[in-house]
Amino acid sequence: MTMSIAAKHAKGKSAQDKIFGANAAAVAAAAKYGKDAVTNATIGAILDEDEKLVCLPTVEEVFRGLSTNEMIAYAPISGLPEYLDCVLTAAFGNSRPEGYIAAVATAGGTGAIHHAIWNYTDNGDTVLCSDWYWGAYKVLCQDMGRNFTTYKMLDENNKFNLPALKEKVDELLAKQDNLLYLLNTPAHNPTGYSLSGEDMDGVLAILKEAAVPGKNIVFFLDVAYIDYAGEKEEVRKIFKKLSGLPANILCIVGYSMSKGFTMYGQRTGAMIGVSSDKSVIDEFAAINQYTSRATWSNINRPAMRTLATIYSDPELLAKVCAERDYYYQMIKARADLFAKEAEECGLPMLPYVAGFFLSIPAKNPDAICEKLHEDNIFAVPLAAGVRIAVCAVPLKKIKGMAVKVNAAMQAVGE
Amino acid sequence: MTMSIAAKHAKGKSAQDKIFGANAAAVAAAAKYGKDAVTNATIGAILDEDEKLVCLPTVEEVFRGLSTNEMIAYAPISGLPEYLDCVLTAAFGNSRPEGYIAAVATAGGTGAIHHAIWNYTDNGDTVLCSDWYWGAYKVLCQDMGRNFTTYKMLDENNKFNLPALKEKVDELLAKQDNLLYLLNTPAHNPTGYSLSGEDMDGVLAILKEAAVPGKNIVFFLDVAYIDYAGEKEEVRKIFKKLSGLPANILCIVGYSMSKGFTMYGQRTGAMIGVSSDKSVIDEFAAINQYTSRATWSNINRPAMRTLATIYSDPELLAKVCAERDYYYQMIKARADLFAKEAEECGLPMLPYVAGFFLSIPAKNPDAICEKLHEDNIFAVPLAAGVRIAVCAVPLKKIKGMAVKVNAAMQAVGE
Repeated sequence: MTMSIAAKHAKGKSAQDKIFGANAAAVAAAAKYGKDAVTNATIGAILDEDEKLVCLPTVEEVFRGLSTNEMIAYAPISGLPEYLDCVLTAAFGNSRPEGYIAAVATAGGTGAIHHAIWNYTDNGDTVLCSDWYWGAYKVLCQDMGRNFTTYKMLDENNKFNLPALKEKVDELLAKQDNLLYLLNTPAHNPTGYSLSGEDMDGVLAILKEAAVPGKNIVFFLDVAYIDYAGEKEEVRKIFKKLSGLPANILCIVGYSMSKGFTMYGQRTGAMIGVSSDKSVIDEFAAINQYTSRATWSNINRPAMRTLATIYSDPELLAKVCAERDYYYQMIKARADLFAKEAEECGLPMLPYVAGFFLSIPAKNPDAICEKLHEDNIFAVPLAAGVRIAVCAVPLKKIKGMAVKVNAAMQAVGE
Repeated sequence: MTMSIAAKHAKGKSAQDKIFGANAAAVAAAAKYGKDAVTNATIGAILDEDEKLVCLPTVEEVFRGLSTNEMIAYAPISGLPEYLDCVLTAAFGNSRPEGYIAAVATAGGTGAIHHAIWNYTDNGDTVLCSDWYWGAYKVLCQDMGRNFTTYKMLDENNKFNLPALKEKVDELLAKQDNLLYLLNTPAHNPTGYSLSGEDMDGVLAILKEAAVPGKNIVFFLDVAYIDYAGEKEEVRKIFKKLSGLPANILCIVGYSMSKGFTMYGQRTGAMIGVSSDKSVIDEFAAINQYTSRATWSNINRPAMRTLATIYSDPELLAKVCAERDYYYQMIKARADLFAKEAEECGLPMLPYVAGFFLSIPAKNPDAICEKLHEDNIFAVPLAAGVRIAVCAVPLKKIKGMAVKVNAAMQAVGE
């Protein structure tokens, strides 16, 4: 007989993480057939052309150069003050929105999403996201007793689907007082799509219209991939649009050091609240600090100090930006080649602008990924298609991949 | 007008952390009067006799010697397998209980408590702890919508108060199906008390009697200070007593690297489930991994690798143990001197066995701490008394401190 002593709400939870699972299969194949024979397109981290995990050299130098105290001491619950200051520059660049702003350190980007869901929705509320989404979003909602629903992200012309968004926003706000809307842009995981300035104007117009008195909208902008999204200041222009929103729309920008500083395992990020209303931001700082104390107590001090050190020294910052740009170009070249070959062979592919991943829409993603194992190609099956991590696959292995994906799709009857 | 857009359950939360607040006052006084004139007994970290933050040298050497990959890569959601293996030895020593055991990596000890509260109690349930407790316990419960109640920890003879515990256990289980009981031992924060083997037998007898069919008890043993609690194997003997408990009693041991490895800011710990029932441990591994994915995604890889490296090499481990013992003796000498002077001047003090803190029972802890500021002594006011961090105060500043605390108590009319 199976015994359970979990709380009622926690019974039966379990998740086989498809990303970690697909990666494990690729690692096993590499052990069997040799690394050169295997294409592991599952990993959400930059591997160079020799398939070595990339660490930005200047970031490593600063981190390893920290004093013992900085390496081991506790940080304040909300984060090191110098970090909370510098992370605004790291996130916003020259496009810092006007209004009241506060930051709270979090355990990577995931931690920022955790706090936003916990503190801005109630048990049973529904969180909104696009139908192409990072799977963890749903796990976060489910673990906290929130529902998760999606709108169709792209219309039949592969343009951002504002009417679909509007319909869902209105539908949800008819039923609940607070709506949390998760939007991952620029360089969206898993498609590589970035909203244009016009798209963003459209999104904000929908939110403003929906935010009638008595209703609150929390617009969570997940910018985990912004540092590989294109020209630094250009991709940040969207932030200026967050100025002057009504007081019942709070924007939270989720920033992560995982990708931008290649410090994945150090678990450091921030949630940045932007509002035209001081009391909304005071509340933001207070309730999220409280939840930090009640979740992880405080955040990795040396990682925070690393960002603060780099952003306090223009020379160091210039070096980090140059190093990042080198890898941005490396990823771009891979995506460009895949896109070119996809077009040539007629493989459908979602509109990729930038970022670690691109996606192939499909009805049977699991079957396709399974079929690709015969070619020793490993990708991640999502609900609506197949995700390919161009961040992790060297150019020589990208070559010919689109054709093989196309063949696998046909083989399974897509 | 004050605007709030927090979820209903999250409105109005805020916590001035008294520990961080008292520390800030001490830092300000040191800046004004000079470091030598100020006694900062607020810090929960080891400072040496020169008031320098201590890092165990071998721990630092191993950590700094890690490869770039280990420093920056993501870890699996549940934790590095080698860490999850070695942390059992780190926690249990030669006293590993019989039964089914699984570990899940957490963000320090706090993260382990977070998951235990979240997954083993329901909204509105009440969590049980002693009346002397680390303040964060209550914040964790409150943030997650759980009530927090206490029993009187010590009886009139300063012995562990089993009848008071039994009364509360029975009272709570009459009202709810799951009871989470948080017990911090050995080297209890904030008193330095350690339960004897007999005390622990008494606790387990109470829990076993109360765990009738249909009721579940989760016995959370917070051993954050175990590595400074006395002779290594001696203090671990309590774990053997966790063997063979009924299936409806799950024991969770909360282990932290913060103190034992002086890696406070690296935020790494583990929750270790012990049960006589395989399905209870399978569930433990599944639901806590799930909540990790939904809270912080994964845990600091280099800190986990540091523990695994040390515990895989007997020579390294022997060095770490010797280094720890040196500081254990340093703390013990400070506590012994304080206790001796307290006895001489008639200052009441709770029974200290070992650990970072000792406590003075009092009715007006805030007033006493305030009064002590006139002597440039800074301690932490708790609900039931004053906490003094002997881990952080050099022996020369301990000398005379008990007399001053006694004078402050009399001055405020205790």
